[in-house]
Amino acid sequence: MLKKIQYEKKPDKEVLKERLRAEKEELFSRQMKLKEHKLPVIVLVEGFGTAGKGAIIGSVIQSIDPRFFKVSAVTRATPEEKRRPWLHRFFEKIPEEGKFQFYDSGWMDEITRGRLDGSLDDIAYAGRIDSVRRFERTLTDNGYLVFKFFCDITKKEQKKRIKSLKNNIDTAWRIDDYDKWQNRHYDKCREVFDRYFEDTNTPNAPWYMIDASSKKWAELQMLTVINDGLENAMQNQAKSVPIMQNTYRLKKMPLLKDIPLNCSLTQEKYDTELKELQDRLRELHNRLYRMKVPVIIAYEGWDAAGKGGNIKRITGALDPRGFEVCPIASPEPHEKARHFLWRFWTRLPKDGHITIFDRTWYGRVMVERLEGFCSENDWKRAYNEINEFEKELRDWGAVIIKFWVQIDKDTQLKRFTDRQNTPEKQWKITDEDWRNREKWDAYETAVDEMIQKTSTEFAPWHILESNDKKYARIKALRIVVEELEKVLGAGKE
Amino acid sequence: MLKKIQYEKKPDKEVLKERLRAEKEELFSRQMKLKEHKLPVIVLVEGFGTAGKGAIIGSVIQSIDPRFFKVSAVTRATPEEKRRPWLHRFFEKIPEEGKFQFYDSGWMDEITRGRLDGSLDDIAYAGRIDSVRRFERTLTDNGYLVFKFFCDITKKEQKKRIKSLKNNIDTAWRIDDYDKWQNRHYDKCREVFDRYFEDTNTPNAPWYMIDASSKKWAELQMLTVINDGLENAMQNQAKSVPIMQNTYRLKKMPLLKDIPLNCSLTQEKYDTELKELQDRLRELHNRLYRMKVPVIIAYEGWDAAGKGGNIKRITGALDPRGFEVCPIASPEPHEKARHFLWRFWTRLPKDGHITIFDRTWYGRVMVERLEGFCSENDWKRAYNEINEFEKELRDWGAVIIKFWVQIDKDTQLKRFTDRQNTPEKQWKITDEDWRNREKWDAYETAVDEMIQKTSTEFAPWHILESNDKKYARIKALRIVVEELEKVLGAGKE
Repeated sequence: MLKKIQYEKKPDKEVLKERLRAEKEELFSRQMKLKEHKLPVIVLVEGFGTAGKGAIIGSVIQSIDPRFFKVSAVTRATPEEKRRPWLHRFFEKIPEEGKFQFYDSGWMDEITRGRLDGSLDDIAYAGRIDSVRRFERTLTDNGYLVFKFFCDITKKEQKKRIKSLKNNIDTAWRIDDYDKWQNRHYDKCREVFDRYFEDTNTPNAPWYMIDASSKKWAELQMLTVINDGLENAMQNQAKSVPIMQNTYRLKKMPLLKDIPLNCSLTQEKYDTELKELQDRLRELHNRLYRMKVPVIIAYEGWDAAGKGGNIKRITGALDPRGFEVCPIASPEPHEKARHFLWRFWTRLPKDGHITIFDRTWYGRVMVERLEGFCSENDWKRAYNEINEFEKELRDWGAVIIKFWVQIDKDTQLKRFTDRQNTPEKQWKITDEDWRNREKWDAYETAVDEMIQKTSTEFAPWHILESNDKKYARIKALRIVVEELEKVLGAGKE
Repeated sequence: MLKKIQYEKKPDKEVLKERLRAEKEELFSRQMKLKEHKLPVIVLVEGFGTAGKGAIIGSVIQSIDPRFFKVSAVTRATPEEKRRPWLHRFFEKIPEEGKFQFYDSGWMDEITRGRLDGSLDDIAYAGRIDSVRRFERTLTDNGYLVFKFFCDITKKEQKKRIKSLKNNIDTAWRIDDYDKWQNRHYDKCREVFDRYFEDTNTPNAPWYMIDASSKKWAELQMLTVINDGLENAMQNQAKSVPIMQNTYRLKKMPLLKDIPLNCSLTQEKYDTELKELQDRLRELHNRLYRMKVPVIIAYEGWDAAGKGGNIKRITGALDPRGFEVCPIASPEPHEKARHFLWRFWTRLPKDGHITIFDRTWYGRVMVERLEGFCSENDWKRAYNEINEFEKELRDWGAVIIKFWVQIDKDTQLKRFTDRQNTPEKQWKITDEDWRNREKWDAYETAVDEMIQKTSTEFAPWHILESNDKKYARIKALRIVVEELEKVLGAGKE
């Protein structure tokens, strides 16, 4: 059921002017509180072509210090952008805390266009809607304030504006074929838009309809909603939100303590299999490049479990033009100031490419959980947020392979000591490693919970038993080859 | 005169294998020293099509931890990339200190292609060569180690490889029309390449010719050069390099103390001119968008000089989809770890757009100089580096407008006190502002030197007398309008 805002009648000129002045002042004085409250604000402005979205945004930002906002004009996706998940170009632009991000049309425009030009059928449309709801919810759950405005004008008004813009050389470029098409198919557009509002009008990110028949009046409506919303958000700034339960089917996974670690490989067998699997992977890499399949390989594991060496055996088979290894350390200030998944969204591969993450977004439910870098509500919510993130990637067509590199406590001690005593390896061991080791049990609990809760059928964890590093490397290579073959076909071509 | 490296005869198989093993080990053990020395390394790999650049890079990186290198496969510029300065896509990828960046073909490929397809005439070519020499020199001057390799094969060998790659479905995509064209016009290519080597073979970034007739042999040559180069660089890590003198024509500028600050405007005159100039700017913004002219506006000035309010009067006239304000604070770790201009290169506008920098790259010769955040050699060298940077932008077609917002010491004190005493303004004043104020004289010296040394004819400083903020705002608007009219035409269309 659509919760439309009540249209108020447009006030008289003098009243309008006075109220506009007051709202502007209010927004201006509020922006600093925003900063103190570390509140990030997203303002999505959609609307009919020629409704004046740009001009209205242009007026609203007059009341905000330029340091505290950005505007992005989202046009149709470029070929480069189409090589990433469809939400990528929107997620990439989310603001830092304390700042505004205005989107001059965005994800609604993309979906409704697809609906109107027939490129999104019912099933694809439903998928997009799910995706939008998850996207908006994970933002608001993580403290973002999300405003969604639709600038509305009548068919007649639109026709008039198209004509007048076309007659001026400096504004003619503002009119494109879609604007004209919209006007000819106004009713059909309205139907598709209305359906979209119903599908995405949620309590956490409701729609606001703006009567855009006159600019100042539209501006007043938008300012009023923003001011009220900011006031509200700052009063109620959520310390915690409901934890959504996972609804994806999960794979049954063992607990760490039940994983036998006595597997090993002879040097001979290792050499033979390494060569065989790397040759196979090399072929598959060519093929996935050609078939434009994106691949994401995620490594987590105990310190000194052998992640680095394991990764090297994978990359050893890959064409360097087609992969990237992303080592993940603690976030930099501009990363910490955004949704915790932002720095992973911005590091996703293009289709046909492989990104290997050396540590991952799972830091949220391990180190951030144990060191108190986020709240309990944050990390508890993260299991579902992560599953949804990976679902998004899967729906995009990505192969996702997640490795937990497992060793026992004695093996870690042996390797730490060895690193300590070998000059070329000393850089690999820090005081922090020793401190983390003391928290082994707490980590084990967290890892068990993580593996149980995030082994979805589309992105399950794979355990690499790594007391014997050779065994773990061959197992990793085999899993990568098998997972790729599922998508690319097993046979030679 | 070309300083070619001596071709050594390819050693016997066994010797090759042994030497390769030794070089690999050496590189592996060296990578950590690289980190300690904070040495950033650029490896540009150019060569004939099918020379095996990717494969050679693929082998070399086997000896480097994946955390310490990235490879970028530079293909032809995308339409998005063409909207930025041509060096942008290369500069954007320079490594952090302690890391390797491999370019699988790069700026040589771009230029020689342009030469071969006729799109770069003699004058344009000469401009590109200047640009490359400046680019490579500013990198090496700032502590980057730059290796340039050319992988060489004969016409016959190339023909053979093209044929064999074409016959396999998984490798056929590696051959493009340019490879085939190269083979048919091999001699012409060689001529253009040779000329390029001569033009860009500099002591700070010399060329190394690699005999790429066999992969392992090519790998050995590259590893040997890299290992020797690293050793050398770490021994001689330059604490200071020669200061190049500015060779661009400079405008005569006054000293700050000689600038009269008694200019002012009545409210009435201010209101009239503000409206007039903003209307005019609004038109010009449409036009520059249409004509795809990029605009860069740089603001520097005393604390409380009124930069923020001044910027707002400019942006007030602009369509928010066509401009961005970049507030520049102290650099984040990933920014500090790169060339000081990197964070400005990556924030440049697309053509047709305006970027306003609220503080700029001139921090190098002001705060970094005075606070000792860089060495004396660094900031002394920076005047020329900055002039060259702006020249690059000018050659790209950008309009560059630089404002120094000037007030006297008493006015600053008045404004500081006012901020202190007005609750809504308190966020604008910090202890740092007071500390900076104590260094007024030192700053004045630095600013005078900066304005004298960087007022090139293509990007001079404009002084905004801002004891009266209204006067400064109108002056800024007028200068912006005039500078844009120089490029876009003064008349109405």
